[in-house]
Amino acid sequence: MTVPLTLISEHRSFGGTVAFYRHASEACGGEMRFGVYVPPQAAKGPVPVLYYLAGLTCTEETFLAKGGAQRMASELGLMLVAPDTSPRGAGFPGEDASWDFGVGAGFYLDATQAPWSSRYRMFTYVTRELPALVAAHLPARADREGIFGHSMGGHGALICALRQPGRYRSVSAFAPIGAPMQCPWGQKAFGGYLGPDTQTWREWDASELVRTLRQPLPTLFVDQGTRDKFLTEQLRPELFQQACAAAGQPLTLRMQEGYDHSYHFVSTFMEDHLRHHAAALNG
Amino acid sequence: MTVPLTLISEHRSFGGTVAFYRHASEACGGEMRFGVYVPPQAAKGPVPVLYYLAGLTCTEETFLAKGGAQRMASELGLMLVAPDTSPRGAGFPGEDASWDFGVGAGFYLDATQAPWSSRYRMFTYVTRELPALVAAHLPARADREGIFGHSMGGHGALICALRQPGRYRSVSAFAPIGAPMQCPWGQKAFGGYLGPDTQTWREWDASELVRTLRQPLPTLFVDQGTRDKFLTEQLRPELFQQACAAAGQPLTLRMQEGYDHSYHFVSTFMEDHLRHHAAALNG
Repeated sequence: MTVPLTLISEHRSFGGTVAFYRHASEACGGEMRFGVYVPPQAAKGPVPVLYYLAGLTCTEETFLAKGGAQRMASELGLMLVAPDTSPRGAGFPGEDASWDFGVGAGFYLDATQAPWSSRYRMFTYVTRELPALVAAHLPARADREGIFGHSMGGHGALICALRQPGRYRSVSAFAPIGAPMQCPWGQKAFGGYLGPDTQTWREWDASELVRTLRQPLPTLFVDQGTRDKFLTEQLRPELFQQACAAAGQPLTLRMQEGYDHSYHFVSTFMEDHLRHHAAALNG
Repeated sequence: MTVPLTLISEHRSFGGTVAFYRHASEACGGEMRFGVYVPPQAAKGPVPVLYYLAGLTCTEETFLAKGGAQRMASELGLMLVAPDTSPRGAGFPGEDASWDFGVGAGFYLDATQAPWSSRYRMFTYVTRELPALVAAHLPARADREGIFGHSMGGHGALICALRQPGRYRSVSAFAPIGAPMQCPWGQKAFGGYLGPDTQTWREWDASELVRTLRQPLPTLFVDQGTRDKFLTEQLRPELFQQACAAAGQPLTLRMQEGYDHSYHFVSTFMEDHLRHHAAALNG
């Protein structure tokens, strides 16, 4: 049975439509929301789908409000799908206590520790439930998927791709967390969601996952600002770069001089990322 | 003596810089904030300046976060300047009571009624004080100014231009209030800021001002969505269109099928507006 979507709002944009939906989520045990951009080409038939995973504190609205992606998605004929960054309203103690854990900070993994494990299952949501909803309700080509994201969501895009080789035709990231097991954000999140056994963390860390790849993924495309205040303590792109090099995984890492961690950085390089995805998704 | 600017934040964007400043304002009797985009061309010398006036409830951040203008401003070599939509923190009774009057709703006029008249002087701020600050602190060509805006700010751009023929080389608006004396938003604002004598309101109403022009302004360029929920009660573009026609003022009014009042509409047509301004400002 297809889960129904409830339309929250709809806005004409660059000849297509931005829409926001809410729906009951089995994976996350409650209501979830997502945003979508349907390009004008979808009037003539299904189009490829590009998933965008946002960063800490963001919602399903952030990317579609500030990313500046709709113009190129309209030109290139790509559907954009932007989920929220966590379940909301679970009512777990401490879920709202900090900006880097709990609400707004789901880290795109499936939690194993109570109480989080009953609701914080963003990996299953983003890779299974949401694509099924998109396929059922929207003019999407289910066989042509790409994924990208920013910061926590940039890392989320990397692990979605690294855990499912062959699934996504294209993968990119803006300022992703490079090795969460080796930074405070990741250690806090993994400790809370996955518990103290750090062996279990390796399944959710991009730098660990890349080491165990049987076959390389298509080239990973990453932009990182040099004046990003999280660069050296949290993001550590050099660790992911080393892991890719050791594993033979092609990576294009561009260090962008003077750019920070904001959507002023993300929107500047959005066109390059969309062209990267379109080359694979429309090919 | 030049009033100093205090930098709040600065972000690299499309090869230029987005910056937010605060400063003491004489016109508004307290602190004011504005945002600016300085394009890469400014490294070689002063560039034309395009002022953007935002709508009800917005701040100096709205346009630079959601407008999607920096890409084209970078290409065209235009500085963008975005003031806040009202003074804040005056402490007047009722200033926060509604979203369409007081804080976030300065209407770009100079209030004459106490207590508003001591702080709510956005016309003087936007047309005198802010340009002087921009000229003193930023690489701006003071002789090449354009102005545009959205909704309340679209009307604000129109009155700034209509009250100062010859000042702005280019003028445009997204979904402007067309005739504030004939809509609830305008009647509430003018009644509060200007008092009960409606004769005094005519100096701040674009449809009234256009009737008294000695010489037409350059063509006014206006986009309006057909599914804008404020279209028939508040914006009433047909009244401004009739006034322009009667006065011989050239107006290009484009009704955009299916678009609403949001920044999804504004950003869709942003490139057209920036090209309109650049044609006059770079000519």
